[in-house]
Amino acid sequence: MHPSLLQDSVRGCPKEIPHNEKLLSLKYESLDYDNSENQLFLEEERRMSFLGFKCLEISRWVICGLIGFLTGLIACCIDIAVENLAGVKYYVVKQNIEKFTEVGGLSISLILWAVLNSAFVMVGAVIVAFFEPGAAGSGIPQIKCYLNGVKIPRVVRLKTLVVKVCGVICSVAGGLAVGKEGPMIHSGAVVAAGVSQGRSTSLKKDFKIFEYFRRDTEKRDFVSAGAAAGVSAAFGAPVGGVLFSLEEGASFWNQMLTWRIFFASMISTFTLNFFLSIYNNKPGDLSSPGLINFGRFESDVSVCLLLSSPKPCVISLSTVCLVLNPVFSVYRVYVHRPCLQVMEAMLVAPLGPDQSEDYPLQKLCLTLWGGGTNKMSPVGHIFVCLLFLWELLLFCADGEYNSMATAFFNTPERSVRSLFHNPPGSYNPLTLSLFTLTYFFLACWTYGLTVSAGVFIPSLLIGAAWGRLFGILLAVWAVPGKYALMGAAAQLGGIVRMTLSLTVIMVEATGNVTYGLPIMLVLLTAKIVGDYFVEGLYDIHIKLQSVPFLHLEAPATSHWLTAREVMGAPVTCFNRIEKVGTIVDVLSNTSTNHNGFPVVMPVAICGLILRSQLIVLLKHKVFVELARSRLTQRKLQLKDFRDAYPRFPPIQSIHVSQDERECMMDLTEFMNPTPYTVPQETSLPRVFKLFRALGLRHLVVVDSENRVVGLVTRKDLARYHLGKHGLEEMQLAQT
Amino acid sequence: MHPSLLQDSVRGCPKEIPHNEKLLSLKYESLDYDNSENQLFLEEERRMSFLGFKCLEISRWVICGLIGFLTGLIACCIDIAVENLAGVKYYVVKQNIEKFTEVGGLSISLILWAVLNSAFVMVGAVIVAFFEPGAAGSGIPQIKCYLNGVKIPRVVRLKTLVVKVCGVICSVAGGLAVGKEGPMIHSGAVVAAGVSQGRSTSLKKDFKIFEYFRRDTEKRDFVSAGAAAGVSAAFGAPVGGVLFSLEEGASFWNQMLTWRIFFASMISTFTLNFFLSIYNNKPGDLSSPGLINFGRFESDVSVCLLLSSPKPCVISLSTVCLVLNPVFSVYRVYVHRPCLQVMEAMLVAPLGPDQSEDYPLQKLCLTLWGGGTNKMSPVGHIFVCLLFLWELLLFCADGEYNSMATAFFNTPERSVRSLFHNPPGSYNPLTLSLFTLTYFFLACWTYGLTVSAGVFIPSLLIGAAWGRLFGILLAVWAVPGKYALMGAAAQLGGIVRMTLSLTVIMVEATGNVTYGLPIMLVLLTAKIVGDYFVEGLYDIHIKLQSVPFLHLEAPATSHWLTAREVMGAPVTCFNRIEKVGTIVDVLSNTSTNHNGFPVVMPVAICGLILRSQLIVLLKHKVFVELARSRLTQRKLQLKDFRDAYPRFPPIQSIHVSQDERECMMDLTEFMNPTPYTVPQETSLPRVFKLFRALGLRHLVVVDSENRVVGLVTRKDLARYHLGKHGLEEMQLAQT
Repeated sequence: MHPSLLQDSVRGCPKEIPHNEKLLSLKYESLDYDNSENQLFLEEERRMSFLGFKCLEISRWVICGLIGFLTGLIACCIDIAVENLAGVKYYVVKQNIEKFTEVGGLSISLILWAVLNSAFVMVGAVIVAFFEPGAAGSGIPQIKCYLNGVKIPRVVRLKTLVVKVCGVICSVAGGLAVGKEGPMIHSGAVVAAGVSQGRSTSLKKDFKIFEYFRRDTEKRDFVSAGAAAGVSAAFGAPVGGVLFSLEEGASFWNQMLTWRIFFASMISTFTLNFFLSIYNNKPGDLSSPGLINFGRFESDVSVCLLLSSPKPCVISLSTVCLVLNPVFSVYRVYVHRPCLQVMEAMLVAPLGPDQSEDYPLQKLCLTLWGGGTNKMSPVGHIFVCLLFLWELLLFCADGEYNSMATAFFNTPERSVRSLFHNPPGSYNPLTLSLFTLTYFFLACWTYGLTVSAGVFIPSLLIGAAWGRLFGILLAVWAVPGKYALMGAAAQLGGIVRMTLSLTVIMVEATGNVTYGLPIMLVLLTAKIVGDYFVEGLYDIHIKLQSVPFLHLEAPATSHWLTAREVMGAPVTCFNRIEKVGTIVDVLSNTSTNHNGFPVVMPVAICGLILRSQLIVLLKHKVFVELARSRLTQRKLQLKDFRDAYPRFPPIQSIHVSQDERECMMDLTEFMNPTPYTVPQETSLPRVFKLFRALGLRHLVVVDSENRVVGLVTRKDLARYHLGKHGLEEMQLAQT
Repeated sequence: MHPSLLQDSVRGCPKEIPHNEKLLSLKYESLDYDNSENQLFLEEERRMSFLGFKCLEISRWVICGLIGFLTGLIACCIDIAVENLAGVKYYVVKQNIEKFTEVGGLSISLILWAVLNSAFVMVGAVIVAFFEPGAAGSGIPQIKCYLNGVKIPRVVRLKTLVVKVCGVICSVAGGLAVGKEGPMIHSGAVVAAGVSQGRSTSLKKDFKIFEYFRRDTEKRDFVSAGAAAGVSAAFGAPVGGVLFSLEEGASFWNQMLTWRIFFASMISTFTLNFFLSIYNNKPGDLSSPGLINFGRFESDVSVCLLLSSPKPCVISLSTVCLVLNPVFSVYRVYVHRPCLQVMEAMLVAPLGPDQSEDYPLQKLCLTLWGGGTNKMSPVGHIFVCLLFLWELLLFCADGEYNSMATAFFNTPERSVRSLFHNPPGSYNPLTLSLFTLTYFFLACWTYGLTVSAGVFIPSLLIGAAWGRLFGILLAVWAVPGKYALMGAAAQLGGIVRMTLSLTVIMVEATGNVTYGLPIMLVLLTAKIVGDYFVEGLYDIHIKLQSVPFLHLEAPATSHWLTAREVMGAPVTCFNRIEKVGTIVDVLSNTSTNHNGFPVVMPVAICGLILRSQLIVLLKHKVFVELARSRLTQRKLQLKDFRDAYPRFPPIQSIHVSQDERECMMDLTEFMNPTPYTVPQETSLPRVFKLFRALGLRHLVVVDSENRVVGLVTRKDLARYHLGKHGLEEMQLAQT
């Protein structure tokens, strides 16, 4: 049996992920973005009036509005929760400092601060590691995979959302070098997947609405909208959100869909803006369109900035970061027990920068030990150095403004803004470079911890820091703040390798359109240079998890491959009227866990039926003999399939008696009678194009008499990729 | 014979266009966005090394850069030429006024002014009407059709570009109520189609470069880039340009393509900016990113503006405009002789507003007759009224600031900016409403004149005027300038019905991201209300020309139709080894002007061959007998097909002797061996999706034994549309 036709034998959440980029895992199932246009479906569509379609269209808009609203609300909650938790933390530490300063016990305050940080991070890490490991990280790679058509287990469940939101609040409040922007994308996607289905399987609550949308095709569209709404809420960038969704997900451009996605994004940023304005006691002001705000860049772009912006050194750091990150990820293979994961997270926590809103600690430290508001005595330094390795970095000459401390003790969002907007001369080049390096290694380590956290803000901060450094060294041409912006764009672009969407997000976040061209040039350079060395961070993580991810086009040099070479053969086919026993045996065979079966009559293909459909049929005992004997039996409807979606029961849970095994099943009504087929001679790029453009899951390969000779699935196409020495074929792994 | 398989019997430029939206013309050929992957093609691809593909990729980038550069340059030339021509015009009129004022001959000056305007417009109309009728209008509907896959004759030729550029210079300098922005999109597309082919068929010059790109698939990608570069140069909106291209053209989202399109757009706006800055003696300033500049909106959006922006009345005017426009278009059926067209254009010219840069005429008129700089005596009014009907509108009470005159005598671009930014109280509501109405009827009449001109600027101006009017009446909430912006967006959106791209264009042109949400709400309202009454302007014009335009999805209620009902049958098939005489006879049959022929062996389908391929084969006499007798004969290569592209000779020009008619032709090497096929039972939406997603031209319908039973082409799908009473089928017309 061809290995590509095999599926995961043990379903459910993966415990062990093969960390090997040369393998392609077979445990991932695909989503089916091609409607199974069987008789039931066609009958329903034909029954529906024009008005019915209008109502469906209106429900789609309503759902998108809801998605935007809820995503904005979640973003708002995260922001407020982080602010308040951090506030409590600082209140406690401040009280402690004031109490113990007289008796020389400042070290206690610092330890208290570290303990509080660790406690927050511990809570965040515990819920992620023990309750829902799928909520770790930013979730963007998972959403990319989902939109690409791979079913990542548990990625769009309610529990994941809850753990993700609580986790991100804890890790940001705990002072890790992470951002709260990335997880918003995942949160938006989960909201979308939940709202659009009109029910919660986890809560066992069915609202009996939106039943029409209970299939992969429709759900995918809403998940795109949710991801876009997440980006929009995170950066106040609705257009950027739409482009992110399109870049990552939608392969087929649909004007109405795009417009709906845009609507969700707009509602999302507006909701966030509205509620945050009320929270900040400035209702009607609408000054917080996103979780992060770069501040307004008033001055326009000059030619000089344009010419100097795509500096090659732009790339070095992000590439190093990407090389380092897999190293951390691979070492994490050994940290795969939840307890170890929590401990690691707690270890990193006290090293993280201070996330306070009014940084009392920094001010107090400076005041108490330095003798002046912005000065620091050497004694203070040594003391701090002994307490924390990081504080070494606070070293600076007497009387110098300690920009380093500012950068380290501020929230990353504020630090980014300071780096962008502070007047020339605010930062000392030496401290800035020290800051860049330390924060850089810290961020590399932090990303991939078992906590919910994003990589956007740390990347922007690192980029802004060394961009500013570069600007200071080049100070002849432009103000260093602009270089900080370019550096931030370059660093983020080098790490995530997004193109158009990132340009638009950056432009929307800065609020000045004239920065589009330099940002685009910087991102282009970052992408070209970065691609030369290593793939983007998300792609690396997708590869490490051995996900069969389909890129947009087949590898350039794959024209010599044809469907005959790539397809899986022989194929298990069913007759149009098949014995129940045969079906049960095939479905129960764990070594050949197929998901799609061509239906033949007598040898030519006449349809395609899915495992999930067969399971519903078996469950409802739709057998020819029973239909004859019990004439009153209710005819199976599309509703029965929708009710079982998306968690179809395994074949083992369905009991089929020995008598029933001898019955026959008529698949005519339920199979897709017009599956897409290709001849054996079709070239791989052509197969790829058909497969990708239509979002297929199974593509039947036939000979000149329409007999089934093979079946092409996602894994057969994903395993070819361009390596250093031309076309390479990845191995398929069972796990 | 099924009518949908028929093609135009008389090729070339259409003389008579059927003005009927219930018909679908058969004279338009389709473009083939699906590669014919025949043996020659596959051999070439397989021969090519990885390095070869890299080089191709680099050439694509180079071409996109060139497209952007040339488009920006053309925009720059148009701008400078218009400015200088208008300058000359005003210099002459001013001289005349100064000379004749003493002798009371001011009427002569006004007549001179009208004559000069008419002269400019005459030149513009003459070149369009007599040399290249395809250059009339903005060209956006034509580019939409091209990107959709319809071959509009002569739309991307060099001659069209030259006439278009000269035409737009003349009509704008001649003072018509038109803009120079729309034609930029067409110009960019022609530039792209020319540059990417590395040769000019018109100039009979072949640079022997970019030969790989000589096919519809590749050319389409570059034309998208050109259109985007045009939008970008016109509005200084590179992201908006990309979105325009995607919204109108690309059905399949390709990340690298999008990025290249973005590159072309960026280069285009930068080139324009750079050269205009030099022209304006401000090199390095980069303050003119587009032909139009809305000025900077500094203040942010408030909730009040947000809530009041989607006003329903927004739509009324644009809908009236769209209802009026077809009326004008239909009456133009009777103005189809070039002389009449030129005369009509000349008639409209003197009615148009004054396009001067420093409006000396307006100032002089006001000064001489009004006794004061901003006042006007009633005597002056009466005189002006007698001379020109329009001047009636300049009526205003003594001592009142004549905002009307300002609006009318200024360039439209400047008027738009004044309406956006002038402080509250600058405009009198009465004059503003008079201006709106007159300019509105003028614009309706002007669009569709036989001149090259765009509809963007007049729409923006009308919208800004009545938006400002609305703002004045509602003055409690926000400054009227913001309402002018919303009105402009609503009017333009109601007319062109673009969605995401227009939002982004408006945001990029205003340079303030916070206006995104209200603009989007306004556009959404405009689209929903507008769609209820009538289609968008471009769609109306496409329908009036009976173009078989494929929308993104099949009509919602078309599930009851299957491939069997929509396909054309019977189909003319060829055998794999076919007699030359048969081929020549089939190709020469003017009543069945097929373009694609399934190849069968013996009855099952084994390939698909195009008319253009057969013509090249016949021209090179690729006959089995000749190959045997003359062993040294050069083997036909892909190059021979590329050299003939895109103007394949008609079959009549190829001489085949009586002996040769008895020869045989082996089509194996040249046919596409793996055409896409569907079974007869496939539903129309499924056929539609396959056809549209892959950009097909012919889709073969087969039975269960793979025998050809029909052929689906563009017309078979385009003729079904949703009317008032459900699904309607359009008639097919030979013309």
